[in-house]
Amino acid sequence: MNVVNVINDIHSATKEGISEVYLVACGGSLVDMYPTKYFLENEAKKVVTGLFTANEFVHATPKRLNQDSLVIVCSHGGNTPESVEASMVAKERGAHTIGLTHNQEASLLNYSDHAFVYEWGSESDVKNNPMAIILQLAVEVLYRTEGYDHYDAFQSGIGKINGIIKNGEQLVEKRTKEFANKYGKEELFYILSSGASYGHAYGFAICSLMEMQWLDAASIHSGEYFHGPFEVTDKETPFILLMNEGRTRALDERAKTFLQQYAEKVEVVDAKELGINTIADEVVEFFNPILFYSIMCVYRQALADVRNHPLETRRYMGKVAY
Amino acid sequence: MNVVNVINDIHSATKEGISEVYLVACGGSLVDMYPTKYFLENEAKKVVTGLFTANEFVHATPKRLNQDSLVIVCSHGGNTPESVEASMVAKERGAHTIGLTHNQEASLLNYSDHAFVYEWGSESDVKNNPMAIILQLAVEVLYRTEGYDHYDAFQSGIGKINGIIKNGEQLVEKRTKEFANKYGKEELFYILSSGASYGHAYGFAICSLMEMQWLDAASIHSGEYFHGPFEVTDKETPFILLMNEGRTRALDERAKTFLQQYAEKVEVVDAKELGINTIADEVVEFFNPILFYSIMCVYRQALADVRNHPLETRRYMGKVAY
Repeated sequence: MNVVNVINDIHSATKEGISEVYLVACGGSLVDMYPTKYFLENEAKKVVTGLFTANEFVHATPKRLNQDSLVIVCSHGGNTPESVEASMVAKERGAHTIGLTHNQEASLLNYSDHAFVYEWGSESDVKNNPMAIILQLAVEVLYRTEGYDHYDAFQSGIGKINGIIKNGEQLVEKRTKEFANKYGKEELFYILSSGASYGHAYGFAICSLMEMQWLDAASIHSGEYFHGPFEVTDKETPFILLMNEGRTRALDERAKTFLQQYAEKVEVVDAKELGINTIADEVVEFFNPILFYSIMCVYRQALADVRNHPLETRRYMGKVAY
Repeated sequence: MNVVNVINDIHSATKEGISEVYLVACGGSLVDMYPTKYFLENEAKKVVTGLFTANEFVHATPKRLNQDSLVIVCSHGGNTPESVEASMVAKERGAHTIGLTHNQEASLLNYSDHAFVYEWGSESDVKNNPMAIILQLAVEVLYRTEGYDHYDAFQSGIGKINGIIKNGEQLVEKRTKEFANKYGKEELFYILSSGASYGHAYGFAICSLMEMQWLDAASIHSGEYFHGPFEVTDKETPFILLMNEGRTRALDERAKTFLQQYAEKVEVVDAKELGINTIADEVVEFFNPILFYSIMCVYRQALADVRNHPLETRRYMGKVAY
């Protein structure tokens, strides 16, 4: 499917243009939607957005949901019951649905007016992965409904980000091994970030560490860190700071300064140092999380290797009833 | 100040009614705004809402912010620099501002068109505390701009919640001591909840445990638990589940069933069992977090007593530069 055509089709079918973009998923797929929530919440003057874990969307469906709403649902396996049901609910309310999945046989596709069966794996161009597809859909909605001054800059960024990532992955290869050797015996990590990347701080905590490594973890927004969480800071507790380029960098820098003074186990992953600045200033912030996801995959692989705990190991997910 | 008069004044000063309600604060004050974000996101058909940690609102101010927007800023001490600045930014953009603080001399008041210097402490009626004031403001905005079918039921709930809490505090007194004796040596807690109360799961983690007890902690949305976080569940890890009454109860019940099977250190705090059901079904869910805040204060006091770590002890906040 083509992003431009899909949004044009939906736009044409609405009365006065797409009025809401609801982003609905669970876990890692929800994480992939956070940059889009941040983008629309910051850049839109008319289009409304909302980010919902699927089961909450099903049980407490927003009254605003209407026939001019677009509901984007993502499920990697395509059969997550609450995500499929969320898509059903959206259709029952007359909303337009787009489903994203890696599974051509997904139940989700039964309730998707438009579908993206996306590429996956380290060989794919990240612009064809769900995080970037969803962001491109939102940019297209904004452009089509109310205009977006930085549309061309954004498209140029989409053309560059995969190359930046490939370079970045090589740059961090050695340091991820050092990280894993240094912190391989830790049992808890705090992950800090801000802006468009906060969702990936959450994602690295719940997916990469809790789910895939059975490690304790929590995300902390860099802006919130100073209003409670920083009291746990000491020389024994490990922190990973994902430093954005763009408007919220000041928040991450403040956290970095504090951590450098009061903590000792600090890993800084800096999008600027990894070369994200070839993307235009006006849009660069939205690309930080796309970079961070790929870079943090190298970190988690290194950690999994040192800990001898393969990333695929589960004790509950897909194994017991829940 | 009177909630009805303030909203009437602001409404009259807008062109076509209040179009956005932005909720901006840090840490514990931001937590107090979450129920209002949930309320408006779920109940409003026109009014838009957004919840922002103050420094992100300052650095990445939403383009939507305009002269018909209402920006509510809360700071207990009233001088949190980024909250004061957020209020300044809102005023510069021509928006209407309401400031809430416990400090009559607060800098925040210099940038607040309307102010609530609120009551605080266990002797105050919770309807005069910031969480309930902000929720009442939002209900008034909704009622005034687009109507709200359950306005009377909500006002009736406001009249009842303090009594429910007083009963609830007595009900849990003994069990909080048992909890503290049982878990006083634990070093990490996960706090689960959903719906309007998810913000208080976050708040108990970052304020009560991390800030006031220097304990590791993280909140988990009950709906998200099954999509990653539950893989850390075992018989050694403590979980606190705040069970809502209302539409998202099914999410909390699902988490409870799983925890009862695979975990052993589980504390369930159930709003239903604590008597919240005297409030009407249509609005009860919005009152869960008001109850939970007060009830969890009893829990944290019991924990502080057993741990011999007073709730006021800080090592960084207000003590070092940051």
